[in-house]
Amino acid sequence: MAELVIVRHGQSQANRDNIFTGWTDVPLTPKGIEQGEMVGKELQKLGIQFSDAYTSYMQRAIVTTDIILAAINQLYIPVHKTWRLNERHYGALSGRNKDEVKQEIGAEQLHKWRRGFKDLPPQLKTRQHERRYDRLGVKIPLSESLEMTLHRLLPYWEDHIAPRLLDGHNQLIVAHGSSLRALIKYLDGIPDDQIDKVEVPNGKPILYRFDDHLNVIKKTFITMDGETDDNTRTSK
Amino acid sequence: MAELVIVRHGQSQANRDNIFTGWTDVPLTPKGIEQGEMVGKELQKLGIQFSDAYTSYMQRAIVTTDIILAAINQLYIPVHKTWRLNERHYGALSGRNKDEVKQEIGAEQLHKWRRGFKDLPPQLKTRQHERRYDRLGVKIPLSESLEMTLHRLLPYWEDHIAPRLLDGHNQLIVAHGSSLRALIKYLDGIPDDQIDKVEVPNGKPILYRFDDHLNVIKKTFITMDGETDDNTRTSK
Repeated sequence: MAELVIVRHGQSQANRDNIFTGWTDVPLTPKGIEQGEMVGKELQKLGIQFSDAYTSYMQRAIVTTDIILAAINQLYIPVHKTWRLNERHYGALSGRNKDEVKQEIGAEQLHKWRRGFKDLPPQLKTRQHERRYDRLGVKIPLSESLEMTLHRLLPYWEDHIAPRLLDGHNQLIVAHGSSLRALIKYLDGIPDDQIDKVEVPNGKPILYRFDDHLNVIKKTFITMDGETDDNTRTSK
Repeated sequence: MAELVIVRHGQSQANRDNIFTGWTDVPLTPKGIEQGEMVGKELQKLGIQFSDAYTSYMQRAIVTTDIILAAINQLYIPVHKTWRLNERHYGALSGRNKDEVKQEIGAEQLHKWRRGFKDLPPQLKTRQHERRYDRLGVKIPLSESLEMTLHRLLPYWEDHIAPRLLDGHNQLIVAHGSSLRALIKYLDGIPDDQIDKVEVPNGKPILYRFDDHLNVIKKTFITMDGETDDNTRTSK
């Protein structure tokens, strides 16, 4: 069966500055670029030949994808960009400092907004407009819970990525902390009340192997020292 | 009507070293990267919003595309990679120094191979194999004339790029000296015996405007000083 690698983009300026980002399109930091190059080196060692790469509409994910593909000499494969892999929309928290929000509303509520499944961050009062979404007829959300993020991501997985894996093509996804948490919740069958324990660090790839029905049979964290099995995975 | 911008990749290592490249996948030089950034700045001034970008299977064109899209804040648009936009295959000349070949076979024959339409550079004796083509069932040519390059490029233009232009979407093509000469020959209706006079320098964009039947009504060379009309264009 084919293999899937998922990886969060390298450190962005907002990650560095401890700021909620969501759909705001911030660039990578120099450290983030390095993290992308390191991921490329790790994947190069594994020798996986990808058929397709998928990323979001955000430059931090797109540029990380290009850095990784350059490092593994696979720049020529198709890179499919979709807003469905975008980071979760953080609503009125977007652009705000995480510590400031914590002081305002308390650690417990902040943890729910950041790590809960159904908890909806405060919504924007007016809908934003950007050419990249307007041209597709896609409405920018006012805010998204992790659950809403999963619901808009899943159709892309089902229609595009899953069929390619079933056909034996290795796939690479470069996306975001929350959009990947949503995907991991789905792939690993993590219950709603357990997903708050899952974190996806910048630039640490995860390798999935599946059976013929696309059930996860092995999940591996890729590190510079080699592969590390995930023993914490909940079976689906 | 929509607009088309075509641009040759920035200077590659082979350009710098005066070497025939063809389908050999060589990187950009630092100067080539700068040229990409300059093109981005020029296009930014024009304010064209692209719907799609097209490039080849070669990193020098793919990376130039990414540099341009980053510079114009349009990284999110789809970048379609196709071998049909690859540089012409230079056969047995690939990897050889142009001056050495000139000394061996003379300036006249060299000019025919480089700039002629039907002249076929000497063929390779055995077919090369690379994963990027093998996986598509595409046979790497033993050598290509400009005519053969046009014949394999044209279906992509007709099936993908032309319909998008007719639907009103601005299109960006980042490709190669010879594949762009082939396209220009087609778009401008240049006779076979005149195409040897057309050159496409690295990193100098050309802007095409069309009528409703996709006849060229204006062709403009974009420079840092503004647009320059092409008065030499042969009407189609």
